[in-house]
Amino acid sequence: MFEFPLQVRYMEVDAQGVVFNAWYLTYFDEAFTAFLAARGYALEKLIAAGSDVQLAHAELDWKTGLRWQDDVLVAVSPARLGRTSFTMDFEARNGAGLACSGRIVYVVVATDGSGKQEIPPLLAGALGTPAPLRAG
Amino acid sequence: MFEFPLQVRYMEVDAQGVVFNAWYLTYFDEAFTAFLAARGYALEKLIAAGSDVQLAHAELDWKTGLRWQDDVLVAVSPARLGRTSFTMDFEARNGAGLACSGRIVYVVVATDGSGKQEIPPLLAGALGTPAPLRAG
Amino acid sequence: MFEFPLQVRYMEVDAQGVVFNAWYLTYFDEAFTAFLAARGYALEKLIAAGSDVQLAHAELDWKTGLRWQDDVLVAVSPARLGRTSFTMDFEARNGAGLACSGRIVYVVVATDGSGKQEIPPLLAGALGTPAPLRAG
Amino acid sequence: MFEFPLQVRYMEVDAQGVVFNAWYLTYFDEAFTAFLAARGYALEKLIAAGSDVQLAHAELDWKTGLRWQDDVLVAVSPARLGRTSFTMDFEARNGAGLACSGRIVYVVVATDGSGKQEIPPLLAGALGTPAPLRAG
Repeated sequence: MFEFPLQVRYMEVDAQGVVFNAWYLTYFDEAFTAFLAARGYALEKLIAAGSDVQLAHAELDWKTGLRWQDDVLVAVSPARLGRTSFTMDFEARNGAGLACSGRIVYVVVATDGSGKQEIPPLLAGALGTPAPLRAG
Repeated sequence: MFEFPLQVRYMEVDAQGVVFNAWYLTYFDEAFTAFLAARGYALEKLIAAGSDVQLAHAELDWKTGLRWQDDVLVAVSPARLGRTSFTMDFEARNGAGLACSGRIVYVVVATDGSGKQEIPPLLAGALGTPAPLRAG
Repeated sequence: MFEFPLQVRYMEVDAQGVVFNAWYLTYFDEAFTAFLAARGYALEKLIAAGSDVQLAHAELDWKTGLRWQDDVLVAVSPARLGRTSFTMDFEARNGAGLACSGRIVYVVVATDGSGKQEIPPLLAGALGTPAPLRAG
Repeated sequence: MFEFPLQVRYMEVDAQGVVFNAWYLTYFDEAFTAFLAARGYALEKLIAAGSDVQLAHAELDWKTGLRWQDDVLVAVSPARLGRTSFTMDFEARNGAGLACSGRIVYVVVATDGSGKQEIPPLLAGALGTPAPLRAG
Protein backbone atom coordinates (compact mmCIF):
# COMPACT_ATOMS: atom_id res chain seq x y z
CA MET A 1 0.00 0.00 0.00
CA PHE A 2 1.46 3.30 -1.11
CA GLU A 3 0.88 6.27 1.17
CA PHE A 4 1.66 9.91 0.39
CA PRO A 5 2.31 12.20 3.36
CA LEU A 6 1.28 15.84 3.51
CA GLN A 7 0.57 18.48 6.10
CA VAL A 8 -2.52 20.70 5.90
CA ARG A 9 -1.60 24.27 4.96
CA TYR A 10 -3.15 27.26 6.64
CA MET A 11 -4.45 28.61 3.33
CA GLU A 12 -6.33 25.36 2.67
CA VAL A 13 -8.49 25.78 5.77
CA ASP A 14 -11.68 27.77 5.35
CA ALA A 15 -13.84 29.80 7.70
CA GLN A 16 -15.38 26.57 9.06
CA GLY A 17 -11.90 25.64 10.32
CA VAL A 18 -11.55 22.60 8.06
CA VAL A 19 -9.89 21.96 4.72
CA PHE A 20 -12.01 23.37 1.87
CA ASN A 21 -13.42 20.52 -0.22
CA ALA A 22 -11.58 21.30 -3.47
CA TRP A 23 -8.19 20.69 -1.89
CA TYR A 24 -8.87 16.95 -1.63
CA LEU A 25 -8.64 16.71 -5.42
CA THR A 26 -5.28 18.46 -5.19
CA TYR A 27 -4.16 16.07 -2.47
CA PHE A 28 -5.20 13.07 -4.61
CA ASP A 29 -3.46 14.56 -7.64
CA GLU A 30 -0.18 14.89 -5.75
CA ALA A 31 -0.59 11.43 -4.24
CA PHE A 32 -1.11 9.86 -7.67
CA THR A 33 1.97 11.60 -9.04
CA ALA A 34 4.03 10.31 -6.13
CA PHE A 35 2.56 6.81 -6.48
CA LEU A 36 3.67 6.56 -10.11
CA ALA A 37 7.11 7.93 -9.29
CA ALA A 38 7.46 5.36 -6.49
CA ARG A 39 6.50 2.62 -8.96
CA GLY A 40 9.33 3.72 -11.21
CA TYR A 41 7.33 5.32 -14.02
CA ALA A 42 6.95 9.00 -13.17
CA LEU A 43 4.45 11.08 -15.13
CA GLU A 44 7.36 12.96 -16.72
CA LYS A 45 8.44 9.71 -18.36
CA LEU A 46 4.91 9.09 -19.60
CA ILE A 47 4.72 12.61 -21.00
CA ALA A 48 8.16 12.33 -22.58
CA ALA A 49 6.90 9.18 -24.29
CA GLY A 50 4.00 11.09 -25.83
CA SER A 51 1.17 10.24 -23.46
CA ASP A 52 -0.57 12.00 -20.60
CA VAL A 53 -3.58 11.42 -18.36
CA GLN A 54 -6.76 13.45 -17.90
CA LEU A 55 -9.52 13.13 -15.33
CA ALA A 56 -12.78 11.77 -16.74
CA HIS A 57 -14.65 11.11 -13.47
CA ALA A 58 -14.15 11.66 -9.76
CA GLU A 59 -16.12 10.70 -6.69
CA LEU A 60 -15.39 11.90 -3.18
CA ASP A 61 -16.94 10.92 0.13
CA TRP A 62 -16.21 12.95 3.22
CA LYS A 63 -16.39 11.44 6.68
CA THR A 64 -14.88 14.26 8.70
CA GLY A 65 -12.75 17.34 8.23
CA LEU A 66 -9.00 17.79 8.21
CA ARG A 67 -7.61 20.69 10.19
CA TRP A 68 -4.67 23.06 10.03
CA GLN A 69 -1.31 21.29 10.39
CA ASP A 70 -2.89 17.84 10.47
CA ASP A 71 -0.42 15.24 9.31
CA VAL A 72 -2.24 13.38 6.58
CA LEU A 73 -1.51 10.14 4.79
CA VAL A 74 -3.15 9.61 1.42
CA ALA A 75 -3.39 5.93 0.51
CA VAL A 76 -3.31 5.23 -3.23
CA SER A 77 -4.26 2.02 -5.01
CA PRO A 78 -5.34 1.06 -8.52
CA ALA A 79 -8.95 -0.10 -8.65
CA ARG A 80 -9.41 -1.04 -12.31
CA LEU A 81 -7.42 -1.11 -15.54
CA GLY A 82 -9.35 -0.74 -18.77
CA ARG A 83 -8.20 -0.31 -22.35
CA THR A 84 -7.82 3.48 -22.52
CA SER A 85 -8.75 4.37 -18.95
CA PHE A 86 -7.95 3.27 -15.43
CA THR A 87 -9.36 3.93 -11.98
CA MET A 88 -7.48 4.87 -8.82
CA ASP A 89 -8.75 4.79 -5.24
CA PHE A 90 -7.63 7.22 -2.57
CA GLU A 91 -8.09 7.55 1.20
CA ALA A 92 -7.00 10.64 3.13
CA ARG A 93 -6.50 9.94 6.83
CA ASN A 94 -5.28 11.92 9.79
CA GLY A 95 -4.61 10.53 13.25
CA ALA A 96 -8.34 10.35 13.94
CA GLY A 97 -9.09 8.12 10.95
CA LEU A 98 -10.56 8.43 7.49
CA ALA A 99 -11.41 11.99 6.42
CA CYS A 100 -12.20 11.47 2.75
CA SER A 101 -12.13 8.64 0.25
CA GLY A 102 -12.00 9.19 -3.48
CA ARG A 103 -12.17 7.33 -6.74
CA ILE A 104 -10.83 8.87 -9.92
CA VAL A 105 -11.07 7.60 -13.49
CA TYR A 106 -8.17 8.71 -15.68
CA VAL A 107 -8.10 8.59 -19.46
CA VAL A 108 -4.83 8.21 -21.34
CA VAL A 109 -4.46 10.75 -24.11
CA ALA A 110 -1.79 11.57 -26.65
CA THR A 111 0.20 14.72 -25.92
CA ASP A 112 -0.08 15.64 -29.63
CA GLY A 113 -3.83 16.23 -29.23
CA SER A 114 -4.87 13.19 -31.28
CA GLY A 115 -7.10 11.88 -28.48
CA LYS A 116 -7.42 8.70 -26.40
CA GLN A 117 -4.73 6.06 -26.36
CA GLU A 118 -4.48 2.54 -25.03
CA ILE A 119 -2.71 2.39 -21.68
CA PRO A 120 1.00 2.07 -22.53
CA PRO A 121 2.53 -1.17 -21.20
CA LEU A 122 5.03 0.71 -19.03
CA LEU A 123 2.18 2.63 -17.39
CA ALA A 124 0.11 -0.53 -16.93
CA GLY A 125 3.10 -2.19 -15.31
CA ALA A 126 3.60 0.73 -12.94
CA LEU A 127 -0.08 0.81 -11.98
CA GLY A 128 0.08 -2.87 -11.10
CA THR A 129 -2.62 -5.30 -10.10
CA PRO A 130 -5.90 -3.64 -9.11
CA ALA A 131 -6.62 -3.63 -5.37
CA PRO A 132 -9.62 -1.36 -4.78
CA LEU A 133 -9.90 0.56 -1.52
CA ARG A 134 -13.58 1.26 -2.06
CA ALA A 135 -16.53 -1.02 -2.80
CA GLY A 136 -18.63 -0.46 -5.92
CA MET B 1 -32.76 27.48 -14.38
CA PHE B 2 -30.25 29.40 -12.31
CA GLU B 3 -26.89 30.06 -13.94
CA PHE B 4 -23.80 31.49 -12.27
CA PRO B 5 -21.36 33.33 -14.53
CA LEU B 6 -17.58 33.27 -14.04
CA GLN B 7 -14.46 33.80 -16.08
CA VAL B 8 -11.53 31.40 -15.89
CA ARG B 9 -8.56 32.91 -14.07
CA TYR B 10 -5.01 32.56 -15.28
CA MET B 11 -3.94 30.94 -12.03
CA GLU B 12 -6.58 28.21 -12.41
CA VAL B 13 -5.06 26.97 -15.64
CA ASP B 14 -2.34 24.34 -15.35
CA ALA B 15 0.58 23.29 -17.53
CA GLN B 16 -1.83 21.36 -19.79
CA GLY B 17 -3.46 24.69 -20.62
CA VAL B 18 -6.81 23.79 -19.06
CA VAL B 19 -8.44 24.48 -15.71
CA PHE B 20 -7.00 22.19 -13.02
CA ASN B 21 -9.64 19.70 -11.86
CA ALA B 22 -9.98 20.92 -8.27
CA TRP B 23 -11.26 24.33 -9.37
CA TYR B 24 -14.52 22.82 -10.55
CA LEU B 25 -15.44 22.15 -6.91
CA THR B 26 -14.71 25.82 -6.18
CA TYR B 27 -16.84 26.87 -9.14
CA PHE B 28 -19.73 24.70 -7.94
CA ASP B 29 -19.33 26.04 -4.39
CA GLU B 30 -19.62 29.64 -5.60
CA ALA B 31 -22.52 28.74 -7.88
CA PHE B 32 -24.42 27.10 -5.01
CA THR B 33 -23.88 30.15 -2.79
CA ALA B 34 -25.19 32.42 -5.54
CA PHE B 35 -28.15 30.08 -6.21
CA LEU B 36 -29.31 30.28 -2.59
CA ALA B 37 -28.84 34.05 -2.51
CA ALA B 38 -30.89 34.37 -5.70
CA ARG B 39 -33.61 32.25 -4.09
CA GLY B 40 -33.75 34.69 -1.19
CA TYR B 41 -32.14 32.57 1.52
CA ALA B 42 -28.43 33.30 1.44
CA LEU B 43 -26.08 31.01 3.36
CA GLU B 44 -25.38 33.85 5.77
CA LYS B 45 -29.04 33.73 6.84
CA LEU B 46 -28.85 29.97 7.29
CA ILE B 47 -25.69 30.32 9.39
CA ALA B 48 -27.20 33.17 11.45
CA ALA B 49 -30.12 30.83 12.16
CA GLY B 50 -27.77 28.20 13.58
CA SER B 51 -27.34 25.85 10.63
CA ASP B 52 -24.72 25.26 7.99
CA VAL B 53 -24.04 22.78 5.20
CA GLN B 54 -21.15 20.38 4.66
CA LEU B 55 -20.25 18.26 1.67
CA ALA B 56 -20.85 14.54 2.16
CA HIS B 57 -20.40 13.36 -1.42
CA ALA B 58 -19.40 14.77 -4.78
CA GLU B 59 -19.24 13.35 -8.27
CA LEU B 60 -17.72 15.09 -11.26
CA ASP B 61 -17.65 14.13 -14.92
CA TRP B 62 -15.42 15.98 -17.32
CA LYS B 63 -16.23 16.21 -21.01
CA THR B 64 -13.65 18.78 -22.06
CA GLY B 65 -11.41 21.43 -20.57
CA LEU B 66 -12.06 25.08 -19.83
CA ARG B 67 -9.38 27.53 -20.89
CA TRP B 68 -8.02 30.85 -19.70
CA GLN B 69 -10.54 33.67 -19.90
CA ASP B 70 -13.36 31.35 -20.98
CA ASP B 71 -16.70 32.80 -20.03
CA VAL B 72 -18.39 30.03 -18.11
CA LEU B 73 -21.97 29.53 -16.99
CA VAL B 74 -22.58 27.11 -14.13
CA ALA B 75 -26.13 25.79 -14.11
CA VAL B 76 -27.42 24.87 -10.64
CA SER B 77 -30.50 22.81 -9.83
CA PRO B 78 -31.69 20.78 -6.84
CA ALA B 79 -31.77 17.05 -7.57
CA ARG B 80 -33.17 15.58 -4.34
CA LEU B 81 -34.32 16.75 -0.92
CA GLY B 82 -33.97 14.29 1.93
CA ARG B 83 -34.48 14.69 5.67
CA THR B 84 -31.04 15.95 6.74
CA SER B 85 -29.36 16.09 3.33
CA PHE B 86 -30.03 17.33 -0.16
CA THR B 87 -28.43 16.93 -3.55
CA MET B 88 -27.54 19.62 -6.08
CA ASP B 89 -26.66 19.19 -9.75
CA PHE B 90 -24.23 21.43 -11.58
CA GLU B 91 -23.15 21.90 -15.19
CA ALA B 92 -20.24 24.11 -16.20
CA ARG B 93 -20.41 25.22 -19.83
CA ASN B 94 -18.38 27.51 -22.04
CA GLY B 95 -19.32 28.58 -25.55
CA ALA B 96 -18.31 25.15 -26.88
CA GLY B 97 -20.70 23.25 -24.63
CA LEU B 98 -20.58 21.17 -21.47
CA ALA B 99 -17.17 21.01 -19.81
CA CYS B 100 -18.02 19.32 -16.50
CA SER B 101 -21.16 18.15 -14.74
CA GLY B 102 -21.29 17.61 -11.00
CA ARG B 103 -23.55 16.24 -8.31
CA ILE B 104 -22.99 17.18 -4.70
CA VAL B 105 -24.72 15.86 -1.57
CA TYR B 106 -24.85 18.39 1.25
CA VAL B 107 -25.63 17.58 4.88
CA VAL B 108 -27.22 20.15 7.15
CA VAL B 109 -25.39 20.51 10.44
CA ALA B 110 -25.80 22.67 13.51
CA THR B 111 -23.26 25.47 13.83
CA ASP B 112 -22.92 24.60 17.56
CA GLY B 113 -21.26 21.31 16.67
CA SER B 114 -24.19 19.14 17.78
CA GLY B 115 -24.33 17.34 14.44
CA LYS B 116 -26.87 16.73 11.70
CA GLN B 117 -30.14 18.63 11.52
CA GLU B 118 -33.30 18.29 9.50
CA ILE B 119 -33.38 20.67 6.54
CA PRO B 120 -34.87 23.92 7.91
CA PRO B 121 -38.15 24.87 6.15
CA LEU B 122 -36.71 28.17 4.92
CA LEU B 123 -33.81 26.32 3.30
CA ALA B 124 -36.13 23.70 1.80
CA GLY B 125 -38.28 26.48 0.39
CA ALA B 126 -35.26 28.18 -1.15
CA LEU B 127 -33.98 24.93 -2.66
CA GLY B 128 -37.37 24.37 -4.30
CA THR B 129 -38.73 21.45 -6.28
CA PRO B 130 -36.05 18.98 -7.40
CA ALA B 131 -35.23 19.13 -11.09
CA PRO B 132 -32.13 16.99 -11.68
CA LEU B 133 -29.69 17.89 -14.41
CA ARG B 134 -28.10 14.46 -14.38
CA ALA B 135 -29.55 10.99 -14.69
CA GLY B 136 -28.97 8.44 -11.92
CA MET C 1 -9.30 54.95 -13.69
CA PHE C 2 -9.85 51.31 -14.56
CA GLU C 3 -11.52 49.17 -11.88
CA PHE C 4 -11.93 45.41 -11.93
CA PRO C 5 -14.86 43.99 -9.97
CA LEU C 6 -14.76 40.69 -8.10
CA GLN C 7 -16.54 38.98 -5.25
CA VAL C 8 -14.62 37.21 -2.49
CA ARG C 9 -14.98 33.43 -2.75
CA TYR C 10 -15.60 31.26 0.27
CA MET C 11 -12.47 29.22 -0.44
CA GLU C 12 -10.30 32.35 -0.35
CA VAL C 13 -11.23 33.08 3.26
CA ASP C 14 -9.06 31.48 5.92
CA ALA C 15 -9.64 30.48 9.52
CA GLN C 16 -9.20 34.13 10.59
CA GLY C 17 -12.32 34.92 8.53
CA VAL C 18 -10.48 37.15 6.05
CA VAL C 19 -9.02 36.61 2.59
CA PHE C 20 -5.70 34.78 2.80
CA ASN C 21 -2.86 37.08 1.77
CA ALA C 22 -1.77 35.20 -1.36
CA TRP C 23 -5.12 35.80 -3.08
CA TYR C 24 -4.37 39.49 -3.45
CA LEU C 25 -1.70 38.64 -6.00
CA THR C 26 -4.31 36.61 -7.87
CA TYR C 27 -6.75 39.53 -7.68
CA PHE C 28 -4.11 41.91 -9.05
CA ASP C 29 -3.21 39.43 -11.80
CA GLU C 30 -6.81 39.22 -12.97
CA ALA C 31 -7.23 42.98 -12.70
CA PHE C 32 -4.15 43.59 -14.84
CA THR C 33 -5.39 41.15 -17.49
CA ALA C 34 -8.75 42.94 -17.58
CA PHE C 35 -7.06 46.35 -17.68
CA LEU C 36 -5.08 45.44 -20.79
CA ALA C 37 -8.15 43.93 -22.46
CA ALA C 38 -10.12 47.10 -21.71
CA ARG C 39 -7.30 49.14 -23.27
CA GLY C 40 -7.65 47.11 -26.44
CA TYR C 41 -4.44 45.08 -26.24
CA ALA C 42 -5.29 41.85 -24.42
CA LEU C 43 -2.45 39.65 -23.20
CA GLU C 44 -3.43 37.04 -25.80
CA LYS C 45 -2.52 39.54 -28.51
CA LEU C 46 0.81 40.26 -26.83
CA ILE C 47 1.53 36.54 -26.57
CA ALA C 48 0.46 35.93 -30.17
CA ALA C 49 2.95 38.64 -31.16
CA GLY C 50 5.78 36.76 -29.43
CA SER C 51 6.01 38.58 -26.11
CA ASP C 52 4.80 37.90 -22.59
CA VAL C 53 5.20 39.45 -19.15
CA GLN C 54 6.70 38.05 -15.95
CA LEU C 55 6.68 39.43 -12.43
CA ALA C 56 10.03 40.76 -11.25
CA HIS C 57 8.92 42.52 -8.06
CA ALA C 58 5.78 42.95 -5.99
CA GLU C 59 4.93 44.98 -2.92
CA LEU C 60 1.71 44.69 -0.98
CA ASP C 61 0.41 46.75 1.94
CA TRP C 62 -2.62 45.58 3.85
CA LYS C 63 -4.86 48.00 5.69
CA THR C 64 -7.72 45.68 6.60
CA GLY C 65 -9.16 42.33 5.58
CA LEU C 66 -11.67 41.43 2.92
CA ARG C 67 -14.43 39.05 3.91
CA TRP C 68 -16.56 36.37 2.30
CA GLN C 69 -18.83 37.72 -0.45
CA ASP C 70 -17.38 41.22 -0.20
CA ASP C 71 -17.85 43.08 -3.45
CA VAL C 72 -14.37 44.32 -4.30
CA LEU C 73 -13.13 46.83 -6.84
CA VAL C 74 -9.47 46.60 -7.85
CA ALA C 75 -8.18 49.89 -9.25
CA VAL C 76 -5.38 49.49 -11.80
CA SER C 77 -3.06 52.19 -13.06
CA PRO C 78 0.37 52.28 -14.70
CA ALA C 79 3.02 53.80 -12.43
CA ARG C 80 6.14 53.75 -14.59
CA LEU C 81 7.22 52.65 -18.05
CA GLY C 82 10.84 51.67 -18.51
CA ARG C 83 12.68 50.12 -21.43
CA THR C 84 12.08 46.42 -20.76
CA SER C 85 9.93 46.68 -17.66
CA PHE C 86 6.94 48.59 -16.38
CA THR C 87 5.23 49.09 -13.06
CA MET C 88 1.54 48.83 -12.25
CA ASP C 89 -0.25 50.07 -9.12
CA PHE C 90 -3.28 48.34 -7.62
CA GLU C 91 -5.79 49.12 -4.89
CA ALA C 92 -8.35 46.60 -3.66
CA ARG C 93 -11.33 48.21 -1.95
CA ASN C 94 -14.58 46.97 -0.50
CA GLY C 95 -17.40 49.19 0.75
CA ALA C 96 -15.40 50.03 3.88
CA GLY C 97 -12.42 51.41 1.98
CA LEU C 98 -8.93 50.34 1.04
CA ALA C 99 -8.04 46.79 1.99
CA CYS C 100 -4.73 46.34 0.17
CA SER C 101 -2.57 48.34 -2.19
CA GLY C 102 0.01 46.77 -4.43
CA ARG C 103 2.78 47.67 -6.80
CA ILE C 104 4.06 45.15 -9.32
CA VAL C 105 7.02 45.38 -11.68
CA TYR C 106 6.59 43.36 -14.85
CA VAL C 107 9.36 42.42 -17.27
CA VAL C 108 8.65 41.86 -20.94
CA VAL C 109 10.13 38.62 -22.20
CA ALA C 110 10.14 36.82 -25.52
CA THR C 111 7.90 33.76 -25.66
CA ASP C 112 10.70 31.89 -27.46
CA GLY C 113 12.81 31.91 -24.31
CA SER C 114 15.38 34.38 -25.62
CA GLY C 115 14.98 36.68 -22.63
CA LYS C 116 14.03 40.29 -21.99
CA GLN C 117 12.55 42.51 -24.70
CA GLU C 118 11.85 46.20 -25.04
CA ILE C 119 8.22 47.03 -24.34
CA PRO C 120 6.44 46.63 -27.69
CA PRO C 121 4.84 49.89 -28.90
CA LEU C 122 1.35 48.37 -28.90
CA LEU C 123 1.78 47.37 -25.27
CA ALA C 124 3.19 50.76 -24.32
CA GLY C 125 0.23 52.40 -26.00
CA ALA C 126 -2.22 50.23 -24.11
CA LEU C 127 -0.50 50.88 -20.79
CA GLY C 128 -0.80 54.59 -21.39
CA THR C 129 0.53 57.55 -19.44
CA PRO C 130 1.78 56.64 -15.94
CA ALA C 131 -0.52 57.77 -13.14
CA PRO C 132 0.74 56.17 -9.91
CA LEU C 133 -1.72 55.26 -7.15
CA ARG C 134 1.04 54.93 -4.58
CA ALA C 135 3.80 57.23 -3.48
CA GLY C 136 7.40 56.09 -3.68
CA MET D 1 19.49 29.02 9.30
CA PHE D 2 16.07 27.43 9.25
CA GLU D 3 14.96 25.90 5.96
CA PHE D 4 11.51 24.60 5.10
CA PRO D 5 11.32 21.91 2.40
CA LEU D 6 8.47 21.63 -0.08
CA GLN D 7 7.84 20.16 -3.49
CA VAL D 8 6.08 22.14 -6.22
CA ARG D 9 2.59 20.82 -6.86
CA TYR D 10 1.19 20.37 -10.34
CA MET D 11 -1.73 22.69 -9.59
CA GLU D 12 0.65 25.49 -8.62
CA VAL D 13 2.19 25.59 -12.08
CA ASP D 14 0.50 27.83 -14.63
CA ALA D 15 0.32 27.84 -18.41
CA GLN D 16 3.83 29.37 -18.57
CA GLY D 17 5.11 26.17 -16.95
CA VAL D 18 6.28 27.90 -13.77
CA VAL D 19 4.79 28.38 -10.30
CA PHE D 20 2.15 31.12 -10.37
CA ASN D 21 3.35 34.14 -8.39
CA ALA D 22 0.75 34.02 -5.60
CA TRP D 23 1.96 30.63 -4.39
CA TYR D 24 5.19 32.16 -3.10
CA LEU D 25 3.22 33.91 -0.39
CA THR D 26 1.72 30.54 0.53
CA TYR D 27 5.18 28.98 0.59
CA PHE D 28 6.46 31.76 2.87
CA ASP D 29 3.42 31.40 5.11
CA GLU D 30 4.04 27.70 5.59
CA ALA D 31 7.75 28.29 6.08
CA PHE D 32 7.10 30.87 8.79
CA THR D 33 4.72 28.53 10.59
CA ALA D 34 7.32 25.78 10.51
CA PHE D 35 10.07 28.18 11.63
CA LEU D 36 8.14 29.14 14.77
CA ALA D 37 7.29 25.52 15.53
CA ALA D 38 10.96 24.59 15.17
CA ARG D 39 11.84 27.41 17.58
CA GLY D 40 9.47 25.89 20.14
CA TYR D 41 6.69 28.46 20.03
CA ALA D 42 4.20 27.26 17.42
CA LEU D 43 1.52 29.66 16.24
CA GLU D 44 -1.10 27.54 17.99
CA LYS D 45 0.57 28.43 21.30
CA LEU D 46 0.57 32.10 20.41
CA ILE D 47 -3.11 31.93 19.46
CA ALA D 48 -3.99 29.98 22.60
CA ALA D 49 -2.29 32.78 24.58
CA GLY D 50 -4.58 35.38 22.97
CA SER D 51 -2.37 36.75 20.21
CA ASP D 52 -2.08 36.23 16.48
CA VAL D 53 -0.16 37.74 13.56
CA GLN D 54 -1.36 39.52 10.44
CA LEU D 55 0.52 40.61 7.36
CA ALA D 56 1.03 44.34 7.06
CA HIS D 57 3.53 44.44 4.21
CA ALA D 58 5.17 42.04 1.79
CA GLU D 59 7.84 42.40 -0.86
CA LEU D 60 8.81 39.72 -3.32
CA ASP D 61 11.61 39.63 -5.89
CA TRP D 62 11.66 36.91 -8.49
CA LYS D 63 14.91 35.79 -10.10
CA THR D 64 13.64 32.72 -11.95
CA GLY D 65 10.73 30.32 -11.95
CA LEU D 66 10.15 27.13 -10.00
CA ARG D 67 8.84 24.17 -11.95
CA TRP D 68 6.65 21.15 -11.33
CA GLN D 69 8.13 18.74 -8.77
CA ASP D 70 11.05 21.00 -8.02
CA ASP D 71 12.39 20.31 -4.55
CA VAL D 72 12.44 23.70 -2.89
CA LEU D 73 14.04 24.93 0.30
CA VAL D 74 12.62 28.10 1.83
CA ALA D 75 15.13 29.82 4.11
CA VAL D 76 13.56 31.81 6.96
CA SER D 77 15.23 34.40 9.15
CA PRO D 78 14.08 37.31 11.31
CA ALA D 79 15.15 40.68 9.88
CA ARG D 80 13.83 43.13 12.47
CA LEU D 81 11.94 43.13 15.76
CA GLY D 82 9.87 46.18 16.58
CA ARG D 83 7.41 46.92 19.34
CA THR D 84 4.19 45.57 17.79
CA SER D 85 5.58 44.30 14.51
CA PHE D 86 8.44 42.24 13.20
CA THR D 87 9.95 41.47 9.83
CA MET D 88 10.91 38.11 8.37
CA ASP D 89 13.08 37.39 5.35
CA PHE D 90 12.56 34.44 3.03
CA GLU D 91 14.47 32.85 0.17
CA ALA D 92 13.02 30.10 -2.00
CA ARG D 93 15.65 28.05 -3.79
CA ASN D 94 15.66 25.01 -6.00
CA GLY D 95 18.73 23.14 -7.18
CA ALA D 96 19.50 25.91 -9.68
CA GLY D 97 19.63 28.66 -7.07
CA LEU D 98 17.48 31.48 -5.80
CA ALA D 99 14.02 31.67 -7.35
CA CYS D 100 12.37 34.27 -5.14
CA SER D 101 13.27 36.28 -2.08
CA GLY D 102 10.68 37.85 0.16
CA ARG D 103 10.33 40.18 3.10
CA ILE D 104 7.17 40.21 5.19
CA VAL D 105 6.18 42.55 8.00
CA TYR D 106 3.87 40.95 10.54
CA VAL D 107 1.79 42.81 13.11
CA VAL D 108 0.85 41.19 16.39
CA VAL D 109 -2.86 41.51 17.15
CA ALA D 110 -5.13 40.36 19.93
CA THR D 111 -7.39 37.46 19.04
CA ASP D 112 -10.25 39.26 20.84
CA GLY D 113 -10.29 41.94 18.15
CA SER D 114 -8.90 44.69 20.38
CA GLY D 115 -6.13 45.52 17.94
CA LYS D 116 -2.33 45.66 17.97
CA GLN D 117 -0.28 44.21 20.80
CA GLU D 118 3.34 44.38 21.82
CA ILE D 119 5.28 41.31 20.73
CA PRO D 120 4.86 38.80 23.56
CA PRO D 121 8.19 37.83 25.16
CA LEU D 122 7.74 34.15 24.27
CA LEU D 123 7.26 35.11 20.62
CA ALA D 124 10.23 37.48 20.68
CA GLY D 125 12.33 34.73 22.17
CA ALA D 126 11.29 32.30 19.47
CA LEU D 127 11.98 34.80 16.70
CA GLY D 128 15.47 35.31 18.04
CA THR D 129 18.19 37.70 17.03
CA PRO D 130 17.58 39.42 13.69
CA ALA D 131 19.76 38.16 10.85
CA PRO D 132 18.43 39.65 7.61
CA LEU D 133 18.72 37.71 4.36
CA ARG D 134 18.04 40.79 2.27
CA ALA D 135 19.62 44.22 2.17
CA GLY D 136 17.45 47.27 2.66
